[in-house]
Amino acid sequence: METKNKEILKLVNNLGMKAQKAFQKMLDVTTKQKNKTLIDIAEKISLNRKTIFEANKKDIITAKSLGHDAAFINRLTLNEKSIQSMIDGILKIVSLTDPVGEINNIQEQPSGISVGTMRVPLGVILIIYESRPNVTIDAAALSLKSGNAVILRGGSESINSNLELLKICSQTLKNNDMPINSVQLVPTTDRNVVSNLITSEKYIDVIIPRGGKSLIEKISKDAKVPVIKHLDGICHVYIDCYANVDKAVKLTINSKTQRLATCNTLETLLVSEKIANRFLPIICDRLLKKEVELRVCNKSKNILKNKNIKNKNHIKLATTSDWKTEYLRAILSIKIVVDIYDAIDHITKFGSQHTDSIVTENHQNAMLFLKKVDSSSVMVNASTRFADGFEYGLGAEIGISTNKLHARGPVGLKGLTTKKWIVLGNGHIRN
Amino acid sequence: METKNKEILKLVNNLGMKAQKAFQKMLDVTTKQKNKTLIDIAEKISLNRKTIFEANKKDIITAKSLGHDAAFINRLTLNEKSIQSMIDGILKIVSLTDPVGEINNIQEQPSGISVGTMRVPLGVILIIYESRPNVTIDAAALSLKSGNAVILRGGSESINSNLELLKICSQTLKNNDMPINSVQLVPTTDRNVVSNLITSEKYIDVIIPRGGKSLIEKISKDAKVPVIKHLDGICHVYIDCYANVDKAVKLTINSKTQRLATCNTLETLLVSEKIANRFLPIICDRLLKKEVELRVCNKSKNILKNKNIKNKNHIKLATTSDWKTEYLRAILSIKIVVDIYDAIDHITKFGSQHTDSIVTENHQNAMLFLKKVDSSSVMVNASTRFADGFEYGLGAEIGISTNKLHARGPVGLKGLTTKKWIVLGNGHIRN
Repeated sequence: METKNKEILKLVNNLGMKAQKAFQKMLDVTTKQKNKTLIDIAEKISLNRKTIFEANKKDIITAKSLGHDAAFINRLTLNEKSIQSMIDGILKIVSLTDPVGEINNIQEQPSGISVGTMRVPLGVILIIYESRPNVTIDAAALSLKSGNAVILRGGSESINSNLELLKICSQTLKNNDMPINSVQLVPTTDRNVVSNLITSEKYIDVIIPRGGKSLIEKISKDAKVPVIKHLDGICHVYIDCYANVDKAVKLTINSKTQRLATCNTLETLLVSEKIANRFLPIICDRLLKKEVELRVCNKSKNILKNKNIKNKNHIKLATTSDWKTEYLRAILSIKIVVDIYDAIDHITKFGSQHTDSIVTENHQNAMLFLKKVDSSSVMVNASTRFADGFEYGLGAEIGISTNKLHARGPVGLKGLTTKKWIVLGNGHIRN
Repeated sequence: METKNKEILKLVNNLGMKAQKAFQKMLDVTTKQKNKTLIDIAEKISLNRKTIFEANKKDIITAKSLGHDAAFINRLTLNEKSIQSMIDGILKIVSLTDPVGEINNIQEQPSGISVGTMRVPLGVILIIYESRPNVTIDAAALSLKSGNAVILRGGSESINSNLELLKICSQTLKNNDMPINSVQLVPTTDRNVVSNLITSEKYIDVIIPRGGKSLIEKISKDAKVPVIKHLDGICHVYIDCYANVDKAVKLTINSKTQRLATCNTLETLLVSEKIANRFLPIICDRLLKKEVELRVCNKSKNILKNKNIKNKNHIKLATTSDWKTEYLRAILSIKIVVDIYDAIDHITKFGSQHTDSIVTENHQNAMLFLKKVDSSSVMVNASTRFADGFEYGLGAEIGISTNKLHARGPVGLKGLTTKKWIVLGNGHIRN
């Protein structure tokens, strides 16, 4: 046990020190060099797809022998489509403006010094993810472009695929005279390595976990390093009394059913009591036809009971726990609220500060909602499904943050950087 | 014991819930209302100085009876000057632009939605500080202006002064129809309350400790909430081979001796070997005349030994631990380096990522230093003493952050806010 602990400590120190050194070297690398390396990685992935598939096959066989279900195997499997999507992802990142080195707001101060900021990489990023091996390439490409060094820790089930993809990165980094350890992969599936890494303030600047809620909660609980985390997405749409009913229906359907299991999917629909009689029967009929189960408040139930709606047996009475639940499936909770203030109170009390939208034609109510709802994305007359790095024009996304500090909402290249102060003088001293 | 724990939990829940509710109300408050309240607080402090001095006297008597030293009593004491400085601080904050509500970068995306950001308060801030009671007013004023709710936890020795200052805030908030609990003070000196608060993710959004390193380290270690922390300031000045010797001397003296015990005071001087023969004898002579003890590397010692310098007995040989030490007093370590790369390596290895400055007339070296030194403030030809919120034009400062994420370096009003995404559509749905 003692010996094992020593070995883990040695491994972690080794990964950490190599990453820190690589990060220092990354501070010297040009945008041109980074883009060339990324293009070469894409090319090498394309040329080596056979070898990648072979490594992936090993993982699939092991996963099957361990009794993993079809959904798991599906996430683990790499095919022509996933290879193409990795390549497209890399080339998209190449096309993005390099955020590193951007100098802003240089202003001369009364003392005579000029003060501004320079955008710089965060340093060493630890990315912990689950079964999808394509995250290896996504994460490596984003880290490279933003000038960071990354330590990747993929799911133990995808270790062979990940090692093969890492090999491609390492060789390409070397060929391009880039620091080879700017992309490292934890070479073992021992869980103690992770517990050790997430408390290594000395080596790691930030942790980004990508995976289920339990993984993220566990890491956040134990980490001694800042975590850019994504927890619940209990998203609301509020149909204001000034809503256009057609837009409201279209937008509710899209928010709930365009994808059922994403974090920006609608979970609770709030309806102003002044519009409920007109709006509820229409939207419920539409949702039930799409086989969405409805969990409604008493007032909603009363409005719906005399209406001619099919599949009424899929309408259930909501309990308090429904307001707190991220279903991630074909269930929607519905509540009638007195007015916009009541809606905002409900969102404050039960929401998860992810994404909330108001449907209204009234300017004052739109502005009030934008101001008072304390979520990472607040929307007016738009589907909650838009909360996404690509839709926001970031060009890429490493995840959606539910943190309030540093990066809030969709995190792209800029979220992997920070700003330092720069001061330019000419021998200036302080009085 | 059990009963006591329950009481503490009740107190913490009470503080937390009140703060969260107050924060919600703060989202509705106008800039005009905030400024009016701040002006009224300043006026009330001016009118009630006698009562404040009486409360402060109680604290001083207790502190003396507990055997605290003169420096401690000095920090604890409020006088006409400190009252005026509190008032001036508040009025300065009134004059600053309100960062809250600022909408930026609204851009139409290919889908038709417009996406941008809105600057919003962080939420509930916990500020933990030591003996100076004036922090109560500084912190309350900054939190109010930035729209946050604040829970203040001052040193137990200043409890009477703090309670008196809080009373003034509370009354003024009430008179201005502002949420009275937007400024709260932990009403007990029980340390368990702090341990409990710093793990209350549910109520607290961010912690700002202001005080000695041991306080900050303890809080950072135990906190489950992000901490904007200030650790070491091991600041460097590097005298490049292309330095102007006059500027270099002036700037080194200012960085080291303008104030000895501040975090932005110079601690290690690095000198290019190409300029050492010319520069070292001059600077050492000047520093020794100012009674600064010098801890120098072997090469420096050799250069200095044949020179005619007074007080040579104050020149000692440096050990490795000197490169890692924040002296905060009249000691300076000096090292000769091969070139700018060697200097950057030394800073990377031994620095604390606080503030580092290069003295050079060479553009390429200036840019290289700015790019490669990973510190919160990086300077060219300017004294490290400029690393300060007021000197940077922030108008106020809650502290200097050594974090990489969120706020780096001097933290002003903006550092107490964050940005959320806002999305404006007209019934837009995602395809």
